[in-house]
This record gives sequence, C-alpha cells and structure tokens, in this order.
Amino acid sequence: MSFAKLDELGHRLQALEHALAILGADEATHMAVGGGEARAEAMSSLAGMYHRQATAPEIGDWIAGAESETLNDDQQAALREFKRQYLNMTCLPSEFVERQTRARMRSEQLWRDLRAKNDWAGFLPALEGVVALVREEAALRASALKLDPYDALMEQYDPGNRVADIAPVFAELKSFLRDFIPEALDVQAERLAARPLKPLAGSYPIDRQRELGLAMMGAVGFDFTRGSLSVSHHPFCGGVPTDVRITTRYKTSDFLPALMGVLHETGHALYEQNLPAQWAHWPLGRARGMAVHESQSLFVEKQIGRNPVFWRWALPVVEKHLGEALQLDDILAHVHKVERGMIRVDADEVTYPLHVILRFELEQDLVAGRLDVADIPEAWDAKMRDYLGLSTIDTPGDGPMQDVHWPGGIFGYFPSYTLGAMMAAQQWAAISVEFPAVEDEFADGKFDTVNEWRRAKIWSQGSLYSTPQLLERATGEPLNADHFTAHLRKRYGR
Amino acid sequence: MSFAKLDELGHRLQALEHALAILGADEATHMAVGGGEARAEAMSSLAGMYHRQATAPEIGDWIAGAESETLNDDQQAALREFKRQYLNMTCLPSEFVERQTRARMRSEQLWRDLRAKNDWAGFLPALEGVVALVREEAALRASALKLDPYDALMEQYDPGNRVADIAPVFAELKSFLRDFIPEALDVQAERLAARPLKPLAGSYPIDRQRELGLAMMGAVGFDFTRGSLSVSHHPFCGGVPTDVRITTRYKTSDFLPALMGVLHETGHALYEQNLPAQWAHWPLGRARGMAVHESQSLFVEKQIGRNPVFWRWALPVVEKHLGEALQLDDILAHVHKVERGMIRVDADEVTYPLHVILRFELEQDLVAGRLDVADIPEAWDAKMRDYLGLSTIDTPGDGPMQDVHWPGGIFGYFPSYTLGAMMAAQQWAAISVEFPAVEDEFADGKFDTVNEWRRAKIWSQGSLYSTPQLLERATGEPLNADHFTAHLRKRYGR
Repeated sequence: MSFAKLDELGHRLQALEHALAILGADEATHMAVGGGEARAEAMSSLAGMYHRQATAPEIGDWIAGAESETLNDDQQAALREFKRQYLNMTCLPSEFVERQTRARMRSEQLWRDLRAKNDWAGFLPALEGVVALVREEAALRASALKLDPYDALMEQYDPGNRVADIAPVFAELKSFLRDFIPEALDVQAERLAARPLKPLAGSYPIDRQRELGLAMMGAVGFDFTRGSLSVSHHPFCGGVPTDVRITTRYKTSDFLPALMGVLHETGHALYEQNLPAQWAHWPLGRARGMAVHESQSLFVEKQIGRNPVFWRWALPVVEKHLGEALQLDDILAHVHKVERGMIRVDADEVTYPLHVILRFELEQDLVAGRLDVADIPEAWDAKMRDYLGLSTIDTPGDGPMQDVHWPGGIFGYFPSYTLGAMMAAQQWAAISVEFPAVEDEFADGKFDTVNEWRRAKIWSQGSLYSTPQLLERATGEPLNADHFTAHLRKRYGR
Repeated sequence: MSFAKLDELGHRLQALEHALAILGADEATHMAVGGGEARAEAMSSLAGMYHRQATAPEIGDWIAGAESETLNDDQQAALREFKRQYLNMTCLPSEFVERQTRARMRSEQLWRDLRAKNDWAGFLPALEGVVALVREEAALRASALKLDPYDALMEQYDPGNRVADIAPVFAELKSFLRDFIPEALDVQAERLAARPLKPLAGSYPIDRQRELGLAMMGAVGFDFTRGSLSVSHHPFCGGVPTDVRITTRYKTSDFLPALMGVLHETGHALYEQNLPAQWAHWPLGRARGMAVHESQSLFVEKQIGRNPVFWRWALPVVEKHLGEALQLDDILAHVHKVERGMIRVDADEVTYPLHVILRFELEQDLVAGRLDVADIPEAWDAKMRDYLGLSTIDTPGDGPMQDVHWPGGIFGYFPSYTLGAMMAAQQWAAISVEFPAVEDEFADGKFDTVNEWRRAKIWSQGSLYSTPQLLERATGEPLNADHFTAHLRKRYGR
C-alpha cells in the first residue's frame, strides 16, 4: 500500500529531523567550542541523508499510488502535505542546489567580515552571484508550482501567500504608518514631558532574571515537562515538540531584553508544544509556516507581554524576583518606546513594518530583474528617507547589509515578520469579540482563554490549511490591516 | 575504487554515530522529561539506519575489492577494521537480532521491577529466554568468526581476548586475593585502631563540588575546549571525541563519590579526546575496546586518584574549594577503604575482581550449557561464600539479579572490568620503570609524563591492534597479574 510507505517514510524523516533539531539546539547551548567542525560535518551529512530520503524518485510513485487508495480524512490531508513537501523539495535540480549552496555559504562568510567594515563594494560581486541564483531559483520554482516567481519563493515559508493579496494590505499599512508614526512620537514626547523616563539602572543577577523568565513562561502556558530554557548568543526556539528548547541572553543592567525575548520565544514554543501529536511523523503535523509562527510569538510578546493590563500582574512578579518596585507608567514607558531607527531587529512594533515593507518592495524588484544589485544602496536609501526619514547611504552595514537573509540567498521570507504581527492583532481582535473581558484575565496572570482559543484555532490545526485559509478559518475574515492599525492606535495613539 | 566507497561509508556512519552519541548524552542531562518517548523512537530509527547502512551487502564487495587495491599503511589498517566490524555486525541474521532485541527489552523491563522485590522465581522464565538466545548468538558468532563460543562473545568488546589467556591469569589473581583480602582487612583494622576514621561529615555545596571537579579534571588533562561536565543520575562518559560529555552526581554530605566519579570518567574522556583525529571517520579511529577503555578510567581513578602522593597535591585543592582541611592519613582511610560486600558496583579495588571472576566463571558455564539458569542462585551463593564469605541466597536482588548485564543479554563483558584494572596497573608499572620519579610529579599536580606515555602508547593507537597486542606493545609483555597484585600489596598490604 502506497500510503503506508509514505507513513513509514514520515517516521524515518522525523528521526532525522529530531536529530538535526536537537543537534542544532545543542550546538548553540551546550556544545564545547572545539566540537564545531565535527558537528557541522555530522549535521551536513544528516541533512544530506534527509534530502536524499525525502526526494527519492519512488516517493512520486507512492504519492500517485496513494491518491487512488481509500484514505480517511487525516490520511488525505497528510497526503496533500506529503505532496506539497515533495514538490517543493524536488523542483530544484541537485546540480543547482549544490551550486547555490556554495554561493550562499561564500557570500554569507564574506558578509560576516564586510558588514562591520561597511564595505558594500567588496560585497557586491558575491551578492550579485546570489541574486542571479535566486532569480534562477524563482523561475524553477515558478515553473514547477505554476506560480509567479516571487510567490513561488514565498510558498516555501507560507503556503498560499501571494503578492496579489499581501501587496494591497501592506500598501494600506504603509500609508497608515507614514501618518501615524509622527503622531505616536508626539504622544510619547508629551507623556515624557509630563513624566520623565525612569531608567532601569539596577543590577539584575542572571540567576534571578532566569527565575523571573521561568515564572513568566510557566504563567503564559509553557509546559516544562516538554521543554526548557537555556542561554545562547542569539535567542531562538528550537528542539522538537516534545522537548522545545528556547533560549535567551542576559545583561545585568536591564531585565527587559531577556524577559521580552523569553516571552517571544515562549510564543513560538506554545505553538510547537501544542501541535497535533497524532500527526507528529507527517509533514501535516508541523507548524503551518513562518508567518503563523511569528503570529504566535508576537501574540505572546506584543498582545500579552506589552499589554498594560498584563503589567498590572507582571510588576509584582518582577518585584518578587528582582526586588525592584516599579510604577505601571514607568515600565510602560520602556515597553512602549517608539523610535525611528535604521536597524530592523532593534525596531519597535510601530516602525518595524516599514522595515519589512521596504525589503518586500525591493525584493520583488530584484527577483523580477527591475532592480540591479548595484543599485540597491540608492534604492534602499530613498525608501529609508521616505518611510523613516533616515539615510543609510554612508553606512551600508546599517542599510542593505544589515540582515543575513540576502547574503544567505533567503528571499520571500521578510513579509512573514509583518504578516505575523498583523495576524497576531487579528487573532487578538477575534478573541476580544468572542470574549470581551479576556484582557481582565491578564491582570490575574491568567491566560487560559487566549490559549484555549489559539489551541483550538491555530495550534491543533498543524498544516491542515494554507496560511490564508488558517487565518480566515480562525478569525472569520481574510488578512485585514485594520486590526493591526487599531491595535497601534489604541496603544500608541491619541 | 572500493576503498573510496568504504571511506565515504565511514563518513556517513560517523554522522549517525555522532547524532546517536549526542542524543544519548543529551537524554541523560538536558532532555525534558516528556521528551523521552519521541527521543527513544528517533534514536531507534537512527540506529536502524546505522545498522542498515553498516551491514549493506555491497560492503562485502567493497571490502573484497579494496583488498586487491594498492593501499597505504593507514588504509590497510582501516580496511582490517572495516572488515572486522562488518563481520561482527553481519554474523547474526536480522530475524535473530529482532527476536533477541524483543526478548532483551522485555527481560530488562521485568528485571527493573522484580530486582527490588528479590523475585528470582518471577524473573527466571525471562532470563531463561535471554540465556537461550545468548547460547544461540554465541554459536552463530563462533561459526562466523571461527572462535569458541564465549570467545566470540568477548570479541565484540575486546578483540583478541581469549578464555585460554584470561582464565589462568584470573585463576592466579583469585588465588592471591583469597589470601590477601584477610591481610588487607587486618592492616586496615590495625590502622583504624591506631587512628580512628574521621568522618567526612561536612556539608559540601554542589556548585563548589563542581568547581573542585573541574579543577581536578583540568589538572589531569581534560581539554575543556572539547568536552564538558554535567549532572546525570548515572555517571557516564559520552558524546564524541571533539565534544566529550562526562557526568557525575553529587551528594552534599560527602564530596568523594562525585570527585572519584569525575576522575574515573575523566580517564575515559582522555582516551576519547586523544584518539587519532585523522582516522576519526574510520572504525580504526575508535577506542580499542572496553577493557582498554576501563584501563584508562581506572588509571586516572586508581593509579592517580587514590595514590597517596596525588593527595599531597589534592588536599590543598580540596581545602581551597570546599574549605575543609584534612590530614593525609584521614583522607587515605576513606579512599583506601576495603570491605567485603555483595554489590559489585560498590566494591573497592581489592575485592572487586572476585565479583568479576565469579561472573566470568558462571557465564562460561551458562553459555556452554553446563549450568542451568534455574541453578544460578545456588551456584552464585556457593562462590560468594567461598570468595567473599557472604551469602546472597535469600537476597537474589543483591546476588545474581544485581546487574543489568544478564537481563540485557550482555554476556562476555564482565571480564573487561578486571582486565582494565590489571592493564592499568601494568601500564603504571611500565611507566614507573621508564620514569622512576614519575610519582613525584603527582605531588605537584603534574601529570604530563603519564599522559604523554599513554598518548603515545594507547590513545594515539586507536584500533590499530587487538587488545592483547596493544597491551604487549605498550608495556613490553602480555597480561601479567603480578603488576596488579604488587599494586594491591603496596597500597593495602603489610
């Protein structure tokens, strides 16, 4: 029976994924420094085994065979995702993949060196090579998937996301933000004039910050029997659904970066821990995609963790662990700080979408060949000045060289960040309609209502639906920028 | 080219071994409790991939092909070990392996439950099943390897070890110990009469014990860029040569168990960290076997760590970390304590070999069919009374049910423990002949001479020689009980 063969394949691939996920998390948390080379070799060899097994030609026959077998609903859904994964993994010839992997690795290594030196000219030839391959990749994927080239790239990260749907929503959001950011900055200035910012100038021992983080993780629903918190240089959520490894990093002068990081990664972790266990060895059992995943992390970080009502409960918890008593208005001035900046990863939730929209626009032009790589700095600078009033023309390291995505050949991924923020706001709006008093629970450190809603509508659904379908089924409407703009207005506006 | 195919196979197998080793160490140290089931599934699936890839029929053709190729010395040695590994892994039909795995797992699970209940009768049928399969296994291995059945079992753990060589040496050791143990106990009683035992009744915080362990590890040669120390329920040495994971467990009332455990595992770790890196992806690059491995752990634990000269350096280190000032004679009374007991893993270095010789004798009778499983308790009890003056007839949980080896179907392994102790003493004797003042270095916390000697003679040799060959090349003579008995006489005798 063909489906049985796919089912067995799923178990084999799951074992390799398990190994790669734990080895990856271990590398960043517990590995001895000298173990890196052997680890890289082992992981690359295991990734090769995964790829060979996941793209074996006979899988095409199994899929075709299974399509004429009598399958129950779960099996039919599983078959759809097996087919989608197989198509996405086999649409690039292995000769191309090898060529692209080499170019990406060289370019990424060069970028790590040249970014700090602001050396755009030195980096340009490598990026031109990567972009040429991205155009080739987009064409190959477009042809196999019968999609537009940029849509075919996005399809890897968020099945069903299309420029035709996203571009108008992003345009609406951009138009809103160009007016709203000055307003938010004015409101902030007025508040700070009335009540000056109280700096968090304490000294916060790492072990106490860790205990605080654990307390918050537990409160918002993290299951410590199936996951843990460690330290790493770059925070991440890794591991496997039965053993989710999240990390943070600490500085002793300020507890907010680590705590907000923990809440963000906990949002990712809740999604992973609550995926449907009965589908765990099928692609169907995985989280839907990057935008939905980001919607879950941002839900916990922004909708919960920066909500004033949340801080009514959280402040005494902070005081208990860190011994620092703060007023609500003082902490909110920190967690709601708005600032125009050049760096995406440092941006607040108000200005962040403009960083993404800028990249989304440039990426489409780059992939379509309407923009030459050599012209990126001017194009970037023009948009940065237009959207945020800042120039990066003299500091490409803080401009088009700031992110690892392009040096690594990752195009079509950036939209997921802002789609995630919008989807989080839309989910919150839907929950608030159904449960008008839900916010009050936060004041008691209760998150059952938001968690049960997300468990039913998002987490338990695995990869049953495309990204837009999942959102629409959960919230009752397609992606709608109004919920996100209303969220920003309420929190940052007059 | 056939050898090139073996070489490539080596890389693939190394990646799977790497994953299994790190996943195994992670399971005991960092895994969330709820992650066990998925981890077991993943590891069993990866072990299956390893077995399928390591036993593929075409490997036999590659080995045959490589034998007629022009190979350099390293490649020829690598080919010998590829062949040995292939033969040892393919001499059991997979139908048999599956049957045996099921029986072993059932028996081990049953044993975990029944040992604490001293329920020999309840356990008997399962053990009879396991022993029947061990007899079958020994016959299959014997036929494939052209060895006697018990030798064929030992061959898995220590290539080249033969009953014909070991039995006389063990007989000599047994005869020595029956006279020597009463003497050692008399000496101990006289010393304690003159100077009563000073109990280590302090309270030793775990973090300080850990720092002490790290200091000792570093001093005896552990490379922290390629390894680390963690906590686990059962201490072990795991991981991979570039990232060796050792563990210990702490009790706050006594620092010696954790510290001696750390020294023991550090001995294993030094072997792994110093294996020949250029052969890392060949079976040739692995540690030779269990007896040699145990000789390295016991070298550090017994020859170094229980040496009175070592403690001249170690006592101030203990005082620095734990704040406890001890006299040399007081600590030696603890680290040289001798006691007849029923439990092998709790035994001191004087009585331990009799526990092993008892099992070695019974195992040979069991495998040969000269002893029925039902008759084990009486046979065990007779030998225990004879060798150590203790009876286990009413407490089989402290007798033949005390070890996991037999319930798990592991026969032919026990000799390695005492062979390791004897080989450690023989290595120490050889070093002392070549460097008569070596012991004095310990008083300064220097271990370069013993480490350089072992690096040259043992660690760097990988699996180049059989176990007896390796020992003879390193020490200039075959296994000789005199070195171990002289060691015991010097430390515990009049």
